[in-house]
Amino acid sequence: MTYCLALLLDAGLVLLADSRTNAGIDNISTYSKLSTWSVAPDHSNARTLAIMSAGNLSVTQEVVSLIDEEIDLNGPEQDGGLTTILNAPNMFRVTERIGQLMVDVQTRRGPALAAAGVSAGASLIVAGRIGWGPMKAFLIYQPGNFIEASSDTPFLQVGEFKYGKPILDRVVTPTTSLQDGVKGALLSMDATIRSNLSVGAPLDLAVLPVGQPDWSLRRIEADDQVWRAMSDGWGEHLKAGFARMPSLEF
Amino acid sequence: MTYCLALLLDAGLVLLADSRTNAGIDNISTYSKLSTWSVAPDHSNARTLAIMSAGNLSVTQEVVSLIDEEIDLNGPEQDGGLTTILNAPNMFRVTERIGQLMVDVQTRRGPALAAAGVSAGASLIVAGRIGWGPMKAFLIYQPGNFIEASSDTPFLQVGEFKYGKPILDRVVTPTTSLQDGVKGALLSMDATIRSNLSVGAPLDLAVLPVGQPDWSLRRIEADDQVWRAMSDGWGEHLKAGFARMPSLEF
Repeated sequence: MTYCLALLLDAGLVLLADSRTNAGIDNISTYSKLSTWSVAPDHSNARTLAIMSAGNLSVTQEVVSLIDEEIDLNGPEQDGGLTTILNAPNMFRVTERIGQLMVDVQTRRGPALAAAGVSAGASLIVAGRIGWGPMKAFLIYQPGNFIEASSDTPFLQVGEFKYGKPILDRVVTPTTSLQDGVKGALLSMDATIRSNLSVGAPLDLAVLPVGQPDWSLRRIEADDQVWRAMSDGWGEHLKAGFARMPSLEF
Repeated sequence: MTYCLALLLDAGLVLLADSRTNAGIDNISTYSKLSTWSVAPDHSNARTLAIMSAGNLSVTQEVVSLIDEEIDLNGPEQDGGLTTILNAPNMFRVTERIGQLMVDVQTRRGPALAAAGVSAGASLIVAGRIGWGPMKAFLIYQPGNFIEASSDTPFLQVGEFKYGKPILDRVVTPTTSLQDGVKGALLSMDATIRSNLSVGAPLDLAVLPVGQPDWSLRRIEADDQVWRAMSDGWGEHLKAGFARMPSLEF
């Protein structure tokens, strides 16, 4: 399993992905589930994009490979006649193209996977912006359909999402700062990692502030001192809060 | 769906169940998922028992009805020759009997339910003690097999369990006091209710302190002032903790 989440804040995008992959509990590996693409701001097709993935790793890796192949086939100027994520006119069409590629892979691989008793299921988060346009984030479900994050629901999750949802429900709103968004995302991930062995560090963090041309990328290792301090400090804070809470008579 | 949890603490048992039942999102009702039985301490079959249920309501209600029927058929002195939960010699046999009744119901109702596209799936938590013996708690899975809570894992959950697991992982150990156990159970329930519409108040709380002969039972309504104060205070505490946490550079 996996856990990836995206926060669509007024101040920008915060993406966080774990990197654990397991095919059975005795076959655990580390694979990045975050991929990014950029076309520089002075280019006519300027854009800043990212995908995070959950589900069958061979399916989601093939989707990313197909995206890259399309871009290569189209040439460096993105004018080879193909619709790729680097020349699609808007985020809706970028997401639609990615969803279509995922459906293609699932259609091609599905029967053989099903015969082997393996699900071809996968889901993706697509986030970014075209030029300096508005930031957007989409969740592509297994059948290729998708929804868009909004100010009412400013976060999207794929994979093992339930453990980390309560903290997001509590603390994330569109006006949350990027710093606090990163904190919230890390606490959501921390809760998930503590409760579910199939989610694990290292983590991949991508932040896109509104006025910044490209992603700030950072890998967070399991022993990262700031992350450990956040996790431990949060645990202490929860325990301290417990003591101060009113008690219910029984 | 449903969420029920049991804490097996050194100081006693804490059980908490929601009461929401839904057959589709337009058919939501309130049903208690907590049932208790007691035989007074001066009786040779003295015991204090409880069941909480998740899954198909008709299945779990039928299990409870069968338990009560067996007890009725056996007569007030529990000597009619039937093995019932009120004369089984230990908690293991009590749990086995309940599991067997659930399997019987599922076997009988399963085909017709499956034909209607409805799952007969259900799971139960059984908790209590025989006489003044050690307290025990069991989780009966859908096939009737079961596991027992231990000091390593002092809580059991059925139903929509993931949202409320992180807080339990953080704060509940066998040495947690009953007061704090109730707090932890309520916060776990609160996180679940906030994140999942299929779980809702009123709540049924049952506490069995080690030295007390019978359950302390309490129903907690959605507008219960102490519970609301706990929930709101916890939210404030989380937000305050956010501000004090170290930030991660990105």
